[in-house]
Amino acid sequence: MKRRSFLSGSTAGLAAGLALPALVPWGLAPVALAQSDALPSWNDGPVKQSILDFVSRTTTNGNRDWVPVPERIACFDNDGTLWTEQPMYFQVMFAFDRVKAMVGQHPEWRTREPFRSILADDRAALAALGEKGLLEAMAATHAGVTTEEFRMAVLDWLATARHPRFNRPYTDLVYQPMLELLALLRANQFKTFIVSGGGIEFMRPWTERIYGIPPEQVVGSSGVTKFVVRPDGVPVLTKEPKVAFVDDGPGKPVGINQFIGRRPVFAFGNSDGDQQMLEWTAAGNGVRFMGLVRHTDAVREYAYDRESPVGRLDKAWDEAVRRKWTVVDMKNDWKVIYPFELK
Amino acid sequence: MKRRSFLSGSTAGLAAGLALPALVPWGLAPVALAQSDALPSWNDGPVKQSILDFVSRTTTNGNRDWVPVPERIACFDNDGTLWTEQPMYFQVMFAFDRVKAMVGQHPEWRTREPFRSILADDRAALAALGEKGLLEAMAATHAGVTTEEFRMAVLDWLATARHPRFNRPYTDLVYQPMLELLALLRANQFKTFIVSGGGIEFMRPWTERIYGIPPEQVVGSSGVTKFVVRPDGVPVLTKEPKVAFVDDGPGKPVGINQFIGRRPVFAFGNSDGDQQMLEWTAAGNGVRFMGLVRHTDAVREYAYDRESPVGRLDKAWDEAVRRKWTVVDMKNDWKVIYPFELK
Repeated sequence: MKRRSFLSGSTAGLAAGLALPALVPWGLAPVALAQSDALPSWNDGPVKQSILDFVSRTTTNGNRDWVPVPERIACFDNDGTLWTEQPMYFQVMFAFDRVKAMVGQHPEWRTREPFRSILADDRAALAALGEKGLLEAMAATHAGVTTEEFRMAVLDWLATARHPRFNRPYTDLVYQPMLELLALLRANQFKTFIVSGGGIEFMRPWTERIYGIPPEQVVGSSGVTKFVVRPDGVPVLTKEPKVAFVDDGPGKPVGINQFIGRRPVFAFGNSDGDQQMLEWTAAGNGVRFMGLVRHTDAVREYAYDRESPVGRLDKAWDEAVRRKWTVVDMKNDWKVIYPFELK
Repeated sequence: MKRRSFLSGSTAGLAAGLALPALVPWGLAPVALAQSDALPSWNDGPVKQSILDFVSRTTTNGNRDWVPVPERIACFDNDGTLWTEQPMYFQVMFAFDRVKAMVGQHPEWRTREPFRSILADDRAALAALGEKGLLEAMAATHAGVTTEEFRMAVLDWLATARHPRFNRPYTDLVYQPMLELLALLRANQFKTFIVSGGGIEFMRPWTERIYGIPPEQVVGSSGVTKFVVRPDGVPVLTKEPKVAFVDDGPGKPVGINQFIGRRPVFAFGNSDGDQQMLEWTAAGNGVRFMGLVRHTDAVREYAYDRESPVGRLDKAWDEAVRRKWTVVDMKNDWKVIYPFELK
């Protein structure tokens, strides 16, 4: 994936301030103007401006909203916020592919639900099995291996699997505007975190390469792991079929507190599962940024909101409108959706 | 606390290499020589040399043991490794002081164990109550408040409480040689983490100021927290009297995997509770550093090992000797124990 370089906030602000001393109010607009190229895939308008204003205000020395560098914590949901989450969460696609890959060692799956329906690509039967079926498939495909074996399985899948609609690797389906936003924040000394309902061990093998977010800045759901010394003396961590932590909804502020230990000043999500993370962010002192992505582009990506079984955006949307949080309209605010459109 | 500045590994190595081209084997000794001042509170000898050699080998470009910057993960136990842990873990001292501070709201504690013995400073009775009594006291003093209230309680205590033997704030009792080691590692682009059996919310309020380790790099034990929106609409996290995760013994590799998601290349502990963290570190590929602090100085600090109820060092010591890990003899290897000795 192509990355761009960005001017750091302070340098850019200084340069612009020298060039346009009479045109701009001190301490706010210079950085915003100078950094307008930092988000080239965002259309101009109030959404883009709200981001640039926030970055400018919090990083300009002397501004009353200036935030000390150690407190510049920015949290992003992953599914539907940094990459696509349709037709199903990609981790579920991975689990289904893994059922197919593992059925040789588990012949009993051919006649047992939910595996039978997964193997038959029988979406209707699967839907009827509901969340319980899904959880059983997740446990069966995510446990019983070491953390290192699981990591390799994730990387193998990403290297070979293709998205059913776009016929591309799943990691091609990250949002170019969000890559630019992550880079802009980091150029301004924000520490960028993922705070996802998805599995922590499903994300960490690739988030550094794709998003520039290292494993230690990935917060997510997790299963129990166990330290075991093998007979040959080598210690391993085995993944047990038991949930340790669900980092979704009210679990997101809990996860942020547990893993990061600081309240974010910036948070971006796209669904009701992000509502409490945004509320927790908003409740801090001083200026804060709360953002939501609305999926409004059925042509270039997908369009869904209040009724969607995956990534439903209902209550969080109402709250965002009421509290004047930033709401991205993907179709109108994003010039480009995916990095491959730039090539 | 006074901090010093250190030369970064690469610059120092270059300078020393230019000055002493014929005297030193390329790529190893130059940095070690140039950085000998980076650990002024460590006596010269094999222990100090093992640290300098490790830093030199892993950070010198072209050395076959060179470690990429993102993988420079260093993990330190806290109690007994970075600060003193006698006569009891300082978090237990905090819990006991908190029982005394809270008894006004809990008059029933005057006659109920373990509170009665804590209020009476009856150590023998407390010892007889064992770990169960201790856990009850911890739960009663660490739950029922918001995370923010708990944070303030910790900071208040640190500002006022004094260690019974040294009559100083507990945060004065950090080890000067370890502060130097933390700074040396960071100057060489290692990311320093705490991985402690102690409570994560007990450590985070002060580790950044005292050790330079930010909250998001503190791994520890934790209780369950709950996201609650108060009647006034303000969201808080409340601390529940339930253990979420015990980051000790085999829990340490689990915690490292859960919070950091990378295997450390450097780990330092002082007790059997650190054994699995050291084993997990040692089992990675390439060069690794495993260190243990032995408390051998009854005059300047404390002397204890195999029989100590707090910070017992028994099996981990045997393993360290067998596998030639670095074992610090506090009395002989450390010129200075505490920063206040320098003043």
